[in-house]
Amino acid sequence: MDSLMNIKAGIAKAGIKPSGDYDILVMHFPSSVYSVFLTQNSLSAAPVQYDRMVREIQDEISAVVVNSGNANAATGEEGLKNAERMAEIVAKHLNINKHQVLVFSTGVIGVQLPMDKVENGIKKAIKNLEKWDLEKSARAIMTTDSFPKFYQTSGMIDGKIFHIKGIAKGAGMIHPNMATMLAYIFTDVKIERSLLEDLSKTVVEKTFNSIDVDGCESTNDSFLVVATGESNLEINDKNKTAFAKKLYEVAIQLAKMIVQDGEGATKLIQINVHNAESKKEAKEIGQAIARSNLFKTAMFGNDPNWGRILSAVGQLHKNIDFSRVKLYIGDYLIYNGEPVNYDREGAVRYLKENSQVTVDLFLDRGSSEWTYYTCDLTYKYVEINAEYTT
Amino acid sequence: MDSLMNIKAGIAKAGIKPSGDYDILVMHFPSSVYSVFLTQNSLSAAPVQYDRMVREIQDEISAVVVNSGNANAATGEEGLKNAERMAEIVAKHLNINKHQVLVFSTGVIGVQLPMDKVENGIKKAIKNLEKWDLEKSARAIMTTDSFPKFYQTSGMIDGKIFHIKGIAKGAGMIHPNMATMLAYIFTDVKIERSLLEDLSKTVVEKTFNSIDVDGCESTNDSFLVVATGESNLEINDKNKTAFAKKLYEVAIQLAKMIVQDGEGATKLIQINVHNAESKKEAKEIGQAIARSNLFKTAMFGNDPNWGRILSAVGQLHKNIDFSRVKLYIGDYLIYNGEPVNYDREGAVRYLKENSQVTVDLFLDRGSSEWTYYTCDLTYKYVEINAEYTT
Repeated sequence: MDSLMNIKAGIAKAGIKPSGDYDILVMHFPSSVYSVFLTQNSLSAAPVQYDRMVREIQDEISAVVVNSGNANAATGEEGLKNAERMAEIVAKHLNINKHQVLVFSTGVIGVQLPMDKVENGIKKAIKNLEKWDLEKSARAIMTTDSFPKFYQTSGMIDGKIFHIKGIAKGAGMIHPNMATMLAYIFTDVKIERSLLEDLSKTVVEKTFNSIDVDGCESTNDSFLVVATGESNLEINDKNKTAFAKKLYEVAIQLAKMIVQDGEGATKLIQINVHNAESKKEAKEIGQAIARSNLFKTAMFGNDPNWGRILSAVGQLHKNIDFSRVKLYIGDYLIYNGEPVNYDREGAVRYLKENSQVTVDLFLDRGSSEWTYYTCDLTYKYVEINAEYTT
Repeated sequence: MDSLMNIKAGIAKAGIKPSGDYDILVMHFPSSVYSVFLTQNSLSAAPVQYDRMVREIQDEISAVVVNSGNANAATGEEGLKNAERMAEIVAKHLNINKHQVLVFSTGVIGVQLPMDKVENGIKKAIKNLEKWDLEKSARAIMTTDSFPKFYQTSGMIDGKIFHIKGIAKGAGMIHPNMATMLAYIFTDVKIERSLLEDLSKTVVEKTFNSIDVDGCESTNDSFLVVATGESNLEINDKNKTAFAKKLYEVAIQLAKMIVQDGEGATKLIQINVHNAESKKEAKEIGQAIARSNLFKTAMFGNDPNWGRILSAVGQLHKNIDFSRVKLYIGDYLIYNGEPVNYDREGAVRYLKENSQVTVDLFLDRGSSEWTYYTCDLTYKYVEINAEYTT
């Protein structure tokens, strides 16, 4: 039996989104430990500020509420009160403590929430609570996403089955001001909050903190992991690695979907950096490539342009010895300590014919590695971001 | 009389550029102190490595040679020998010491220089030496630039006239791999090398290090200031500020031309950051805005999008208090500690009708300020960088 059966979700159309689509999601579940990562952007939204406060004072939560269509960001004191009010409405109707509720918003910034609509929407969503349907929930939190993002897996540790399920949204930052990356992962294992926080911190570094669409961090980015403890599997120091691996699996699948759905993107690009001096260095190098507009446009143009990749690395001023560097696009070795004659037509064909491609960079400086994900930069990205308003 | 009259320049068509255009520039001048800034990209080109060596051992130079069409970058030992060989050819035909010659290249990377053509080109250029014509020289070093970049000014200090003239090239980094920013400024003042280095370091920070086209630093970026000492004006600690101001004038004009000619750009955007805690902070904030793809596409779309600007600032995690921030686009106050009702149509019209626009950000944290220049991100940028090869 799937012990995540006890998670209920309800959605509603509150009229916050101009399209009239679903824009409220409420989830209700047994009181659970959790770990929540919130954007560090100094222009953080009201719900982010509110959740930061809850995170400090509350070890267990039993509900989340998400509205789409309005980010409740750059909304000052009133915005903060509205975020708290959302928690209060949920708490009242679920008959729980308001500090057991986390609040999330995504959508337009700089506009106050229409609280009447929000309140009605929350009530409706609570009336609609039913066994959690991942796809339905994922749809309710979409803004400019072109597809709902969800993933589930299960595993066995010490002969005991456990489950992990997650939903996410995000496709870059969008008009009128920006959108947001949100992800919610639930598991039924028993785990101490501090251990869950440690494990999910490592996972978030390798997943949601290792993806790029346009180098822009939002005001509302949030990532939540909840462990209901309803299975009889207890995670401890001995078996934590096996559990973390599964948690990573769910997180990386969701993170990759966000990049795949990157605004205007035609390609998901996986950048593997090998043989760096440290993980930190490997990650920095992966990120530098992932964020290079020249690299991203070359990928859109199916151009195996090693110069742009190496130059993005050189720009970090790390004193890399490029005569020891090897660079592959797919299986094609395109730079080997010096320019090489390679099957250019084959490499172009590889880029043209695949919507998921890999770049492998070997530095010959150490033994650390990191993987970073990005997408290409296309006409469509410029269109989406330049022509939304005018 | 203009004492920069003693600077000679010669250009030639060596056949390095496939177009057959001018691709060699040789300049010859009286032995002069100089200050040269070279890219810190670890993938630095052979001429950059060569010039670094000269910079350490030689206080005066009397010639520069520049080839366009080939960057002599990622070309290993052979590339380094070719850079040195360029200096030797120039030295031989001008009858000077080879260490009095600086060498610069710009163009394709990863391809060895065609040294026969280069040698013939240098000889021809030396035969063509004549009184320096700024526009002609600027044309000979162009790669994908759409117009030649040059500027001159003069001034009077202590009753003595002096001159400053400069040429530059650069328009973003280009296929097959990238292009380069090059700038050469000559003045006739008398000045100690160490003082010239100090002054030009400050100037370069405020000019060529405060511009952005696509966030990508090239393998060949170089900036040279030469002081021939032929006027009778001596620059010292007392009058250095007046001289530095004029040096800045020439450098900023050239730097702005590079941004204006940014690949696909339709707008030159001046970002003024006011009331920061330090100059360093002000510059970082200006740069963060200048590099934000979301901001750059909004500018292309004539969208006065304060959310994208503030979010780019927030992304630096500097704990900015946005309730004290004011933001102007042109004369339009679009954010004043909170979203404000402003004349949106007027602001859109301002962005639409001007090819040079300003953004003013007041932080209310201190008294330091910085100006950063960038351009918008357009379809044309994607086209130039995605479709060059395929």
